[in-house]
Amino acid sequence: MSAAAAGPVPQLNVKLIVPFVNSVRAVFTTMIKVPTTVQRPYLKTAAPTAYDVTSIIGFSGDVVGSVVISMHQATAARLVTSFAGTAIAAGTADYADAIGEIANMIAGNAKKDLGRAACITVPTVVFGAGHSVARLSDVPCVVIPVTTPVGDFAVEVNVRQVSPAN
Amino acid sequence: MSAAAAGPVPQLNVKLIVPFVNSVRAVFTTMIKVPTTVQRPYLKTAAPTAYDVTSIIGFSGDVVGSVVISMHQATAARLVTSFAGTAIAAGTADYADAIGEIANMIAGNAKKDLGRAACITVPTVVFGAGHSVARLSDVPCVVIPVTTPVGDFAVEVNVRQVSPAN
Repeated sequence: MSAAAAGPVPQLNVKLIVPFVNSVRAVFTTMIKVPTTVQRPYLKTAAPTAYDVTSIIGFSGDVVGSVVISMHQATAARLVTSFAGTAIAAGTADYADAIGEIANMIAGNAKKDLGRAACITVPTVVFGAGHSVARLSDVPCVVIPVTTPVGDFAVEVNVRQVSPAN
Repeated sequence: MSAAAAGPVPQLNVKLIVPFVNSVRAVFTTMIKVPTTVQRPYLKTAAPTAYDVTSIIGFSGDVVGSVVISMHQATAARLVTSFAGTAIAAGTADYADAIGEIANMIAGNAKKDLGRAACITVPTVVFGAGHSVARLSDVPCVVIPVTTPVGDFAVEVNVRQVSPAN
């Protein structure tokens, strides 16, 4: 059981992070039409930040883990409006679909540049004021903070490579 | 964009649900040492129930989607204690690892019986009082309610098959 083997925090692999930084920029510019400023990524070691809306996409294959996109409710509503071109009522399947689709575009775009065989899952979308995603002991977690004119969000990249680079 | 195409709720495929029911029973009996009673599964169509602890495992390959295990904080603490054989402090990586490992065992065990090529991801664990997992419009969501002497939990199976059965 991995719970008994909590060791040092795994190291950051920059080659696995850059594709996600580039993907956030590309997706937000072309698809969501919201300008972004990507802040310096950092290794998540302290207690996680709490958010209201989180979408999660899993990776399996040569790269395993997940990408997690978390934001506050007001930011989510504004991003969905910008993405869909119209306001969508929170609490509907359409709203959850739009949040999940943003994560799907970021993960899918990054996957192309990872240079490895990886599958991504359909998104899972979590709603609830003040929840957080836990850090597990065997996957490094890098937080990419992103600021935008409609609110900030965080992209957490929790992936590790299980096969050697080509 | 899938948000614009919210159609009828997809149908329940029993062959994709039974492996998860059997897996819950097997994992809890042999690994967690807590007796379970699996209630009748139902299609999640109304507003989702709120929980405090959720672990999520993604599926990709011939079966895509996720399995989501949600419970209240008190139940989570008791299950972790029973699984680990000792109390583990909430908020630690060990605690999150244990919660994730329970989901991993349930998903891994079910995967063997799905009879199809599917990859599962490492777990993502969410903490926060009163959060819920949204239903997306293109994946059926079946809730398997489970009662135990230390508290109840729900296993949500959000999977669909993308290749024909053998």
